Amino acid sequence: MISILILGKGKVGTHLFEALKNKENLQVFFHNSRVLKDLPKVDITIITVSDDAIAEVSEKLDLPFVVHTSGSLPVSELKNKSRKGVFYMLQSFSKEKEVDFSKVPFCIEAQNTKDLNTLKKIAETLSENIYEIDSKQRQYLHVAAVFANNFTNHMFSIAESICLTNEIPFPILYPLIQETAKKIQILKPKEAQTGPAVRNDKKTIKNHLNLLEEKQKEIYKILTNSIQNGN
Amino acid sequence: MISILILGKGKVGTHLFEALKNKENLQVFFHNSRVLKDLPKVDITIITVSDDAIAEVSEKLDLPFVVHTSGSLPVSELKNKSRKGVFYMLQSFSKEKEVDFSKVPFCIEAQNTKDLNTLKKIAETLSENIYEIDSKQRQYLHVAAVFANNFTNHMFSIAESICLTNEIPFPILYPLIQETAKKIQILKPKEAQTGPAVRNDKKTIKNHLNLLEEKQKEIYKILTNSIQNGN
Repeated sequence: MISILILGKGKVGTHLFEALKNKENLQVFFHNSRVLKDLPKVDITIITVSDDAIAEVSEKLDLPFVVHTSGSLPVSELKNKSRKGVFYMLQSFSKEKEVDFSKVPFCIEAQNTKDLNTLKKIAETLSENIYEIDSKQRQYLHVAAVFANNFTNHMFSIAESICLTNEIPFPILYPLIQETAKKIQILKPKEAQTGPAVRNDKKTIKNHLNLLEEKQKEIYKILTNSIQNGN
Repeated sequence: MISILILGKGKVGTHLFEALKNKENLQVFFHNSRVLKDLPKVDITIITVSDDAIAEVSEKLDLPFVVHTSGSLPVSELKNKSRKGVFYMLQSFSKEKEVDFSKVPFCIEAQNTKDLNTLKKIAETLSENIYEIDSKQRQYLHVAAVFANNFTNHMFSIAESICLTNEIPFPILYPLIQETAKKIQILKPKEAQTGPAVRNDKKTIKNHLNLLEEKQKEIYKILTNSIQNGN
């Protein structure tokens, strides 16, 4: 039996508690991070508060093993005097949408093998995608995820805006978007690259630039340039 | 029975011929676009050659109804003296990957209802996603698709490059990428936007910029700015 305290009742904490609460061999407590009195003496404390609050919350904890769930911060952000680690779920959580944890990659880090195994055991109750990722790698993974998720979503947002302005139903682009996302599981993104930039189709590029608003044009140019220069 | 001539044996022509050749009520011919002699007298000719060659090829045709398959060019790019139209499949075709036409949106345009119905009948043998899109709309749709497909793929490419440099397996990002693509079928892209830019999380943005190479940094900045300004 592993006893777990989840601290912080935001999106991550709530989804994680819901996912873990009925698992065999886990005993899960769920606390708001504002009142840190009378906490249960658990094997592991998972802090799910916002990045800014991790240092402050962890400093007040007198518990044996504390991990945070941040993708961008190193394990040293934790200020508890006991053992430390990271339990980072590489997924974008939203309140509106249920999380299928079986597909979530768990990125774990700890300072000794026993703690690493504890994190692995917890993650294994939810997913088969478990990776040991150290603090330095995790920083890079986090910025890679910004490109793969946040910036990609922004591309969709611009596409939608162009459609709306021209009375084109945005769902017309859904199959292309799904295909684009699936393709890179078969081909490397660089090999999967299509379109006027990689073909250096100057006529089409010029036509496209004429259709776009100033800000869109700037983005179109810089990304076309980046595709053509292979970076 | 509709008789169809597909002109041009590139990726689009080949995939389309394979998909149509055994359909009931269609008789399909498939010709190279270089030799335009002794062509069968068909109801509709579908030119699948590259954008640059459409004018030249269509000019030489003495056939009753000619359409092109280009997303970026207007119907007026056709130089045949007979009826004209467009049969644009909004999908990224690659030789390496089979096309599931049932998911492909067909964007059709013609100059009279009868021709439009002919195009509709052909498209209906393959897909339920059929849209009437005029030449002006199609230009915008095409540039929207560059954002939704080509630039999105480039985001994946940058993410992969960051992973490789830091010995992180790129497949760790697959679930996030799939989730990002699926999410916008439920939420509008603007509502689905997450990450440091939309949160205006300056500390994380600064950390990310420190990790990136010059060109990546430039893209990161311009997209963060664009997300924050809502365009």
